[in-house]
Amino acid sequence: MEFTERGYLKHISTTFNNEIEGIRRDFLDMGCLVEKQLQRAILALINGDRKIAQSVINSDEKVNTMELDIDERCASFLALYQPTASDLRFIIAVSKAINELERIGDESSKIAQISIDLDHKAPRGYREIQKLSEHVYSMIHTSLTAFSNLDTHVALSVVKSDKQVDSEYSAATQQLMTFMTNVPDSISSVMNIIWVLRALERIGDHTTNIAEDVIYLVKGMDVRHLPYREIEKKIA
Amino acid sequence: MEFTERGYLKHISTTFNNEIEGIRRDFLDMGCLVEKQLQRAILALINGDRKIAQSVINSDEKVNTMELDIDERCASFLALYQPTASDLRFIIAVSKAINELERIGDESSKIAQISIDLDHKAPRGYREIQKLSEHVYSMIHTSLTAFSNLDTHVALSVVKSDKQVDSEYSAATQQLMTFMTNVPDSISSVMNIIWVLRALERIGDHTTNIAEDVIYLVKGMDVRHLPYREIEKKIA
Repeated sequence: MEFTERGYLKHISTTFNNEIEGIRRDFLDMGCLVEKQLQRAILALINGDRKIAQSVINSDEKVNTMELDIDERCASFLALYQPTASDLRFIIAVSKAINELERIGDESSKIAQISIDLDHKAPRGYREIQKLSEHVYSMIHTSLTAFSNLDTHVALSVVKSDKQVDSEYSAATQQLMTFMTNVPDSISSVMNIIWVLRALERIGDHTTNIAEDVIYLVKGMDVRHLPYREIEKKIA
Repeated sequence: MEFTERGYLKHISTTFNNEIEGIRRDFLDMGCLVEKQLQRAILALINGDRKIAQSVINSDEKVNTMELDIDERCASFLALYQPTASDLRFIIAVSKAINELERIGDESSKIAQISIDLDHKAPRGYREIQKLSEHVYSMIHTSLTAFSNLDTHVALSVVKSDKQVDSEYSAATQQLMTFMTNVPDSISSVMNIIWVLRALERIGDHTTNIAEDVIYLVKGMDVRHLPYREIEKKIA
């Protein structure tokens, strides 16, 4: 047996290899789909495009199906091949990460739904959404790259980004609350913008969890709930 | 081997039995702690009791540690005993459910933090919080009972309750938004109440996921993303 660059042990059994490679490929496909969902949900919101928004909502079912399918294959893999060491960690990490991807998909659908509900008379807050969404979108992309390349340093950069997302989110929400107080008529539409910001902040959290799954997969260390600096020290 | 009432196969190996029983007990202990956290967070909020609020925030670390500990034991169990059938489902279900418990703990901490930040000059919305929190609290308790007794019908009742929680949440949020429009000075404090309601609604979702994990554990069926009626038919 030989440790491959893909994070699992290379086995003599071709079926074993094919199956694990299939799970890996499907996980990355699911990641790509979820990435696109977020991108299109924001596009729908900014441009007031109901058609795109509806397509995001429709694709949520596909994301859910992918989650169930990959999860079932992970469980069957455990039962059939009884993997250990990095193979086992690979299955555990994928099983956790698809759950995060599914939740990112849910949040993107919520954004798409809000974009349909909005009256598009209140562009207030769109700039903040654009900024935060670009940040969060880049985090998803980076965490999938970290997974694909088994790169813990790239994964760590995602954990670091989340701090900035949190502070951008707080600042934007605070500004919008002040705006609502001054322009009470705007409450209903500005609240929708706040929900979108909240969804983006949650997506940042889920993406950070995926990055932590990558660190677990590669290093065998569970770094959840640790502050950034401690994770940095651990994987140095 | 014999199928026990606790959802896993009874093995000759005492270590195997002890370990799986230990994981089961620790999961239920973690559930009890999280249940208490929510109860105390709401108590702190309603009574404006900062001391209780702080104790909820402090106990979040304990919940996180329990999650990491149980998760590590689940991974070690998979590597050491390579379980199959209902033993494997037990480990998978616990591993998923502790993640939901941890997120419930997080939401309770958020409620406790809001209770500290609130100026307690705005009792508006407290009645809605009390009603929703009682509902959600009972859902957590019921889902843990379903897990403990491996009762899919009790688990199903949790899935059903979530529909009601969602509609109570929407109605309460809508009312509070109307109130804010009429009394713009209240925006800051009413927004805090809306965040609490949102946290409770999320706790309802996480609890529903635990109930679905129980159905997976007992029936071997993944019922996530299915509407209530379909789950009801499946487990009939």
